[in-house]
Formats: sequence, C-alpha cells, structure tokens
Amino acid sequence: MIDWTNQYAQEMKHFKGYPIGKTLKYLTDPEIISLAGGLPSPQTFQTSEFRAASEKILKHDIDKIMQYSAIPGEESLVDAVIQFLKRDNISLDRQQVLITTSGQHGLDLTGRALLDKGDIVLVDRPTFAGALVAFQMEAPRFVGVDIEPDGTNVAVLEQTIQQLKLENKIPKFIYVVPDFQNPTGITMGLEKRKALLKISYAFHIPIIEDSPYRDLRYHGQTLPSLFSLDQELYEGGGNVIGVYTFSKIFCPGLRVGFNIGPPDVIQKMTNIKEGNILNTPKYNQDMCTAYLTEMDVEAHFDRCRAYYQEKLALFLETMETYFPDNSHVTWTIPQGGLFLWVTLADHVDTAKLFFEAIKHQVAFVPGEQFYGENPEKNHMRINFSFSTKPQLVEAVKRLSTCIKSFV
Amino acid sequence: MIDWTNQYAQEMKHFKGYPIGKTLKYLTDPEIISLAGGLPSPQTFQTSEFRAASEKILKHDIDKIMQYSAIPGEESLVDAVIQFLKRDNISLDRQQVLITTSGQHGLDLTGRALLDKGDIVLVDRPTFAGALVAFQMEAPRFVGVDIEPDGTNVAVLEQTIQQLKLENKIPKFIYVVPDFQNPTGITMGLEKRKALLKISYAFHIPIIEDSPYRDLRYHGQTLPSLFSLDQELYEGGGNVIGVYTFSKIFCPGLRVGFNIGPPDVIQKMTNIKEGNILNTPKYNQDMCTAYLTEMDVEAHFDRCRAYYQEKLALFLETMETYFPDNSHVTWTIPQGGLFLWVTLADHVDTAKLFFEAIKHQVAFVPGEQFYGENPEKNHMRINFSFSTKPQLVEAVKRLSTCIKSFV
Repeated sequence: MIDWTNQYAQEMKHFKGYPIGKTLKYLTDPEIISLAGGLPSPQTFQTSEFRAASEKILKHDIDKIMQYSAIPGEESLVDAVIQFLKRDNISLDRQQVLITTSGQHGLDLTGRALLDKGDIVLVDRPTFAGALVAFQMEAPRFVGVDIEPDGTNVAVLEQTIQQLKLENKIPKFIYVVPDFQNPTGITMGLEKRKALLKISYAFHIPIIEDSPYRDLRYHGQTLPSLFSLDQELYEGGGNVIGVYTFSKIFCPGLRVGFNIGPPDVIQKMTNIKEGNILNTPKYNQDMCTAYLTEMDVEAHFDRCRAYYQEKLALFLETMETYFPDNSHVTWTIPQGGLFLWVTLADHVDTAKLFFEAIKHQVAFVPGEQFYGENPEKNHMRINFSFSTKPQLVEAVKRLSTCIKSFV
Repeated sequence: MIDWTNQYAQEMKHFKGYPIGKTLKYLTDPEIISLAGGLPSPQTFQTSEFRAASEKILKHDIDKIMQYSAIPGEESLVDAVIQFLKRDNISLDRQQVLITTSGQHGLDLTGRALLDKGDIVLVDRPTFAGALVAFQMEAPRFVGVDIEPDGTNVAVLEQTIQQLKLENKIPKFIYVVPDFQNPTGITMGLEKRKALLKISYAFHIPIIEDSPYRDLRYHGQTLPSLFSLDQELYEGGGNVIGVYTFSKIFCPGLRVGFNIGPPDVIQKMTNIKEGNILNTPKYNQDMCTAYLTEMDVEAHFDRCRAYYQEKLALFLETMETYFPDNSHVTWTIPQGGLFLWVTLADHVDTAKLFFEAIKHQVAFVPGEQFYGENPEKNHMRINFSFSTKPQLVEAVKRLSTCIKSFV
C-alpha cells in the first residue's frame, strides 16, 4: 500500500486543520456547558420564516435549484447584498461582489488569491483562528502586533512595517476584524480605522476586513467599516477586501457569505472558486435572498441584539461576582458580537486548564489557538451567545471553582 | 489604489479558472442549441420527491439544519454512502468517507492534499477539464498519454513512468475517469483496470478514480471500479482515492459529493476542508440522504438510463446520416455517461469552428480544453443529455452545415 504520509504536499504534511474543532471533540459529556463554540443561539433562528421561504422557492424554481448555477452567485442575491450594504454607506457594482460558501470560504479564497509561501501577513495578537487556518494552507509568515482595548495597535504596526521594509520585506496584507473581534470582542476606534487606512495607502498594503458580527452591536455607536471609509477617503476605494457571512446574522447552516472588493480581485477569486467548488448551491443562496428581501432584517437584528445583550450583561455581572478584583482574572467588555476574552494570571496555561474545566463540566477555547506566532498561554475565549442564561451563570460558577482549584 | 495584479500569488497571476465557463458565456442567443454544458436533463429530476423530502427534514430538524454541523459530514449520509457503495463491492468504514461540497471540491481537496509545484500528474489525453483546473491551482506538470478506444493506454503509461524514473521523477498520482470518461465517453476495459493497478503497485503511485457517471450505463456490462478491484486484489486496498458526486445521479444543484480512500488521506482532506469551507450544509446533505434511503434509487437509475439511452441512440443515428463515411468526421460510441467526442479533419481548429457554430446557432466545447499539455485542436466535446430530442437532431444538422462551410 502507498505510504501516504510521504505523498502529501510539503506544506500539508504537518497541517492539522482547525484547532477549535479538535477542542470541541472533548465535549462529549452532555452535562458540559460549552462556552467554546462560536454558535449563534437557535433562539434567534427564524424557523417559520425559513420554512415558508423554502416552500416558496421550491414551488416556483425547483428546476433551476436542482441544476448547476452561475459561479459568481445568483444575480438576485448579489443585488440584495448591494442593497444591504448601502445601509452601511458601501456602494458596489455587481462585479465587486462574489457569493461565497461561507466566511471561511471567503478567507480561503483570499489566501489562495494573494499568498505565496513565506509572504508576510500582519495580524492582531490574538486574532481569529479560522483566518489563521485558512491562510496557513498557503504557508505564509504571520507577524503579530498585540491588540489594544480600542483595537489594532496601529503605531506599533507602522513601526513593524518600517522594520520589515528595512529588511526588504513588504507584508502581503493586513488582516483585521474591526468590529467585536473574534476572540477578544474588541472594537477598533474610528481614529485607528483612519490611521490603518493611511498605513495601507502609505505602504501599498491591502487590508482584509472580516465583518461577521458587524450588525450585532449592543452598546455604543456603529463606526464606519474600513471598506466604507476607504470608499469615502480614497475616490471609491480599492485597498480593502471585505469578507462577510450570513452565518451570524441569519444562520450558519446554509453556508453562504460574500466577499467584496475591486472587480479584478473579485474576478480572480471567482476563477479560484471555479476550480475549487463551482457554484454555491442556488437553494442556499435563494434562502439568503429571501432573508434579505422578504423577512424584516432590521426587526430581526433588533431581536438578536436585545437577546444577546441580556446574555452578555448577565455573563459580565456573574463574572464580577465570582471573580472579584483580587482574583487576578480580567476580561474584555465587548460592545457587540459573540465573544469575550478572559485573562488569567501569567503562569496559567489554559490549554491545561481546559482539561480541568472539562472535569468541572464547563468548556472554553484555550487562547493559544488565536495567535499566528508566539502564543500567549493565559487566556480563554468565551462565547456567551449559545448557552442559556442559567447555563451562563452556572458556567461562571464552575469556571471559578475550577480556576481556584487549578491555580 | 493597490496594484492588485502585482499582489496575486505567483501561481495565480495567470490562472484563468475553468475554460468551459468562458465558452458558455458566448451562448447568449436563446436560439442556440447547446451541446456544450455537462448538464443532466431536468426531465430526470425527481421534483415532487425533492419537495416532499425537503418539507420533512425542515419539519423535524430545522434547528440543526440552520446551525453549524460536523465537518467530515453527517453520519447519516456517510452511512448511506457506505451502504450505496456496497452494491459496487466497496467496503468502507466511516473513517474512509469524506462528504464534499461536490465532485469539483473532491478534486480540489485531492490536489491540495497531494500536489506540490512541479509534481507530475499523469492524465489521459484528453481528460476532464475540471480536474485539470483543480490540480492546476497547485501548479503541477501534467504528463499525458493518448487515450485508446478501451481507455488509458497502460503500456505507454508504463513506458512513460519508466522514462520519468530514469530522470529521477516519480509521478505524484495517476488521474482517470474509467467509466464513460469526460470528454470522450470512453470506458476502460477490465484488463486495463487490472494493469493500471499493477502499475500503481509496482511504482507506488496512487490512482485518483473519478466516478461521476458510473451508474449511467446504457449498454454492456458494468465493470468493477478501480477502488473495488484494489480492495479485492490487495488486502482491502489503499492505493486508490475515489471521487464521487451526487450531481449526475440526483442533481447538481445541491453541491454534494464524497471522497473515499484510506483513513489517513480522508483525515488530511478533512483538515483542508476545515480551513477551506468548514461543513457542507446539512440541508443539502440530508436531501442526499433522503435520496439514497427514501427514494427508489434503482428505479430512478432505470428511468435515467432509458431516457439518456434514447437520446444517445438518436444522436448517433443522426450523426450517421449527416456525417457519412467520406466526411472525415468520426466520433466515439459511448456505453454510458453524458458525452461523446467528435474528431474532425486534422487541420480543423475547433476553437475557431466554435465561433462559426455560434453563428449557426449550435454550440459544443472545443476539444483543446481537455488536454493537460500540448492540446489537439480538431475535436469537439458533445453533450447529449441536456437538449431535447428534436434539438439534438437539429443540432447535428446545423453542425453539419457549419462544418461543411468552414472546412
């Protein structure tokens, strides 16, 4: 028989895929309260609207739904997306939108289009693990800059780029999640957004803006996206690629998202999609079109915001109670999204704590999974959107007991 | 603005995606009869069964359908696939099956798992353009061997491998479509299948077996797949990766397929899928499970076979009438599948003929798109599954007029 381990592509030999998936595998005990996944709550799912939309599209369009369809996406969905983004002061032609098979797909298409082995990708420390995994398949070098409470440390980022320039290295792109970042929940301030674009203009480095949670803001004012700022500041833009998904605003199960950017880049990603999967299924796209055009999106967002805001408030309140000031436990206070970031005493390795937590029937994602290089060990990513309120309270209690016994 | 053309990954700079898609773009005149696409006929679609299955799964399982699901695939579909392949003397554990988001996805996962830049891939001349495009993204070197009327020329293939070995080059894998090959419709004989496996064993070169049409046989005896022969001849197998899709046996629109192979390879492809798209949508998988377990698959195949067999017979008969022996036009006579391969006089360039054919309101795919290297110019790929019978007859008439005027 073939020795397959010798057959793999060089860069794939040691590629292990998505670490969070491996973490979730340990959660077999149904009594475990999981704060680990990135799952939206099924309480927010519009199930009756989903069934009605499904029946309608299968009644009228089943032959087209069962057939191959256009690889860049259904025109009706592209148009609905263009309309949807107008709310956000983004102005697009059809040639600037590619329907993807999820945000993960959008990230992978980005990595495949842009990255050669050894190319430098600038990321926050920490940053979204799914982006790291997608880009990792192209074997780039991640260079990270510690994130601040108001987002990317643009001053250090600029110094880093200057330093790399002295070594004759120009980073291929900057990857950021400006709104309610995964894993920290941190939002980038307006001045930093403008400063980041200035860096992009000064050094000709594109920005990849990942926006999965942008509409899930529970506190404070919505800030303009990097994409819209680029369009405003720079004659229609052209330096930012936007990666979006329906997963967090409608549902993850349909696996539909969209990338936006300059027509040439969208064309290149479309060509890659042709070799990768051909079309995104029309049924799944038509369901998203129905979501955007026939269901009441703003009312849905309001419900989601009210629902998640309460959960977040309860979680933060319970943390205050069980982790007092002298506990050496600190956490971010997100204005939206699904996650927050808990920091323990320096010496605590949360990858080890994780197994202790499992014994206490509570789970989180060890923070080390969110670093492109040189991981910090003493953080936990906490998801507060999926578990019920009583579960959230109980989870904090269990975490508290577990951490006390472990430290 | 960023100069994006300088930002692309080296191997992507000149990557143009799927050539057939570009061909189809010219078919804007609704009067054109297209023999170009690879579309199954909507006449074979089980629309009422589709609607009923959809209603049932949305009634019982909507919360799971709207949520993230397991990346390797739904266990129910994996089990249904294992059961389905038992008909074909293939015996699999769950760890040997990965649900994919279509056959194209299965090919891309294969290329990404196995190919480094410059690796040699052995292919038939001609071979499936979609596989060439998927593999091309890893920048391999295609080495082709002219196909014979009974499939891959295994004698010349072996000589080619011997020659490459002298140059210290071992091909990474052999890619074949043994049943009703796309684009030629040619089927590989049993002795050749065994000989191909012997080559795989002797030189330790894996075989990628692409089987999209296997169940669509209209004439002659079903031959064992390479995968099943490998399992039979070699203690359970391990040299063949099988790439399958529901596109041609159920419908393309759902974008679901499956790869089968040794557990280690399936695990590696699963890891790549994690970084690429996460899970295949559960709704689309559950529909395929319903197809395999609740609809009558064998009766459906019988209907498809009867329907396509008639179309093929009519097409061949009309070709006989309009392209007599002295016309310098020859064609393959497939035993199944969706395609046949027409060869014109040596000097005819079908890429040019294509534009003449468009004027005559008939379309095909120029044969040059089906070569990994050194394309032959005087062939056409003909799809006989999609157009209606009167259209097929009219298409042959138009082709005949067009070729006579062009030559």
